Amino acid sequence: MLEQSLEAARQGRQAALDELLELLSIPSVSALPDHDGDTRRACAWTADRLRRMGMKVEVAEVPGGRHPVISAEWLGRPGKPTLAIYGHYDVQPPDPLEEWRSPPFQPALREGRVYARGACDNKGQVLAGIKAAEYAFGAGGPPLNLRFFIEGEEEISGPSLPRFLRENAERLSTDYLLIADGEFTAPGLPNLLTGLRGLLYTEIVAQGAAADLHSGIFGGAVPNPLNTLAHVISALKGRDGHITIPGFYDDLVPPTAEEVESWRRVKDENTIRSLAGVRALEGEEGFSAVERTWARPTLDVHGIVGGFVGEGSKTVIPGRAKAKVSMRLVPAQDPGRIYESLQTYLETLETPGVALSLVKLGEAPPVLAGVDHPGIAAARRAFASSFGAEPVLVREGGSVPVTVDFQAALDPKLMLTGFGLPDDALHSPNEKMDVEQFHLGTEMVLHLMENLVAGGG
Amino acid sequence: MLEQSLEAARQGRQAALDELLELLSIPSVSALPDHDGDTRRACAWTADRLRRMGMKVEVAEVPGGRHPVISAEWLGRPGKPTLAIYGHYDVQPPDPLEEWRSPPFQPALREGRVYARGACDNKGQVLAGIKAAEYAFGAGGPPLNLRFFIEGEEEISGPSLPRFLRENAERLSTDYLLIADGEFTAPGLPNLLTGLRGLLYTEIVAQGAAADLHSGIFGGAVPNPLNTLAHVISALKGRDGHITIPGFYDDLVPPTAEEVESWRRVKDENTIRSLAGVRALEGEEGFSAVERTWARPTLDVHGIVGGFVGEGSKTVIPGRAKAKVSMRLVPAQDPGRIYESLQTYLETLETPGVALSLVKLGEAPPVLAGVDHPGIAAARRAFASSFGAEPVLVREGGSVPVTVDFQAALDPKLMLTGFGLPDDALHSPNEKMDVEQFHLGTEMVLHLMENLVAGGG
Repeated sequence: MLEQSLEAARQGRQAALDELLELLSIPSVSALPDHDGDTRRACAWTADRLRRMGMKVEVAEVPGGRHPVISAEWLGRPGKPTLAIYGHYDVQPPDPLEEWRSPPFQPALREGRVYARGACDNKGQVLAGIKAAEYAFGAGGPPLNLRFFIEGEEEISGPSLPRFLRENAERLSTDYLLIADGEFTAPGLPNLLTGLRGLLYTEIVAQGAAADLHSGIFGGAVPNPLNTLAHVISALKGRDGHITIPGFYDDLVPPTAEEVESWRRVKDENTIRSLAGVRALEGEEGFSAVERTWARPTLDVHGIVGGFVGEGSKTVIPGRAKAKVSMRLVPAQDPGRIYESLQTYLETLETPGVALSLVKLGEAPPVLAGVDHPGIAAARRAFASSFGAEPVLVREGGSVPVTVDFQAALDPKLMLTGFGLPDDALHSPNEKMDVEQFHLGTEMVLHLMENLVAGGG
Repeated sequence: MLEQSLEAARQGRQAALDELLELLSIPSVSALPDHDGDTRRACAWTADRLRRMGMKVEVAEVPGGRHPVISAEWLGRPGKPTLAIYGHYDVQPPDPLEEWRSPPFQPALREGRVYARGACDNKGQVLAGIKAAEYAFGAGGPPLNLRFFIEGEEEISGPSLPRFLRENAERLSTDYLLIADGEFTAPGLPNLLTGLRGLLYTEIVAQGAAADLHSGIFGGAVPNPLNTLAHVISALKGRDGHITIPGFYDDLVPPTAEEVESWRRVKDENTIRSLAGVRALEGEEGFSAVERTWARPTLDVHGIVGGFVGEGSKTVIPGRAKAKVSMRLVPAQDPGRIYESLQTYLETLETPGVALSLVKLGEAPPVLAGVDHPGIAAARRAFASSFGAEPVLVREGGSVPVTVDFQAALDPKLMLTGFGLPDDALHSPNEKMDVEQFHLGTEMVLHLMENLVAGGG
């Protein structure tokens, strides 16, 4: 059955590419109301593909959302696990237009690549999954139960998918979730994302005098919230990069030895230093730079509000100042617990004339996809069989909200990966997808379905 | 001779008041080009008064300036000291007009006060000096040599007077300088200003990455100039208010016991706390709040530039950040030496990935008028004889540039005081001058001239 579907995939390459070109010619820019009609068309086009292969398709309009969620279901293998495949049919705006070598919504083939907005992010990758399902249905049906969740608000962080998942969690139960919305680490080197950092974004408010004061008249006798904030920030993270909020490191789950080993192959200090454009890296001693960005929490000040920030000099002592401070969190730190701990700690950092308060501006829990569930093994073998390369295990320092939404609603075993390449120019002019990556991505999904069943799921 | 001039002053009160009303009706707003003609008229009016009493008057147009300097001279007492009297003929703009009870340039008498823009700042006060000189000339001539320096750019910090003094210092030699451009500490309580703090205003530039970075991707591995600046600022002044720049306190000249004692009568902690609107004062231990604002140096952050300061959250690690940091300096701290010391100290505060540099945005040396020269004694007795009250010795926490300019050019013994009252509303709507203060101010200057000679000066 796998052989048959793989054969169909190989025979169907030209037709699949034509379909990709057709989808890419729909300018489904979710951010631009002028393109709402196009975005609907891309939705309908995608839902139609899923319906045609025999899946039960729901196009869900979610209150408060702008573009519907496609939820497709085929539960024809009772007793077998359920795999869900995530993707999105919306794309980024194409600006700046003048930098495109060919128009962003007139897909162009050059040197084995298709150039168009959305080629890699995410139409080429979501279509690889759809085509794999189609071939599986053509060869007697997928070996497991199958779902698709394809949204139209990924590029605008819309509310539809999170709300749809939350409100329908019971009927959407899923064992495995494949998210293919990323890039290889290098050409020929696929990766699996085993963890994502979370985030706690706060504002520390320092309240001194009721109004701004003149430093000539009052300087030396009154509190200066900016000076206080400097002491507070210094007391949150030492010069050695160690964060000094009590209990901050209590719940850390260290990465596996295999992951740390794997990261060495991916990025060295010099690469990161050169990417960042700094004379020297900084951070916690005893951890490599890649470990610090992927598997260690951090604390950064993003801006300090208050007083005078124009050109020149003004001798104001601000009555109030605020520091925007975020923490990147790693498994299994809990943003809520860290927030409380910071709040309690701040009480000890006030100066006599400056009251401190804390505002939460955002939070996302860290995600641990794990390295030891059967989905990871299945995905590794699937990459080896399709692309002929073992994936490296990597993490990401940022958060991907959709993973959090899925975990909260369905708690599936995560397989986070991508079929793109590092030079695919996501969100930039001349975005592209290598045609071979698209086709082999399709084959990878076919292998994955088979492996999830063979592996006992 | 003194008795005769005092008698003339008493007889001439109505005429003097009429002259004040005449001068106040000229809208000499130096900041507004539309009023340049008026400002010239006020200059001519003033110069004419000085010329009429027999002084040699120069109306000096200074290259780069907007309004001329009046320099008047009478050196009829060889062997006697020379007293210069400073004042300015320009006024602040009168906005907001709708808040005036009577039009700002139609002087109105109500309850013994004259209401008009410039009534106290500085026309009422400078005219008190001019009238005193006029009465002295009428009674046989002043007992000492006399100068006036009356400028038209005080309210716009113009370059004319500093440049005129600098370029003509040799021919303008002066023993004593009276600056009456302030207010009593309280009704019935005159003051003498014995010191002014200086200022060193800097920008500390922290340079990390070549461009802003995303904290999801780089956070934990790269330097954050805002975090570094927090450590730097903390290392400049401790939570105890003690400034930790090496050598910062080396050159301090402590105030005299008499001054410290005198300050107790002027302002207590509660007054300052309530004026500032803070829940608690802060600052160096071991010094009263008034001492901290008048006779102790301080260090304040006025603003921190860099990163994201808008509403909400953005996870940027700025490539560069700057802190606006000023120091108020007291006698005999040298701004240049402090600047160098700070620069050297900063080198030790860099973090591996953040380079620090220092920019000087402004400086003014502290001014010590002194409490032990004969001018102070003469002024104290003059206040006692005219207003019937001993002045308190006070200082000011801000800098008054004109005092620095006079010290640099002529190095006179300074008598800094004022005939205004605390509720005179300088720079505000309904500015006023109490008519009695104006007349007694005239008498004070008559006594002062006499005392400077009698005291041996």
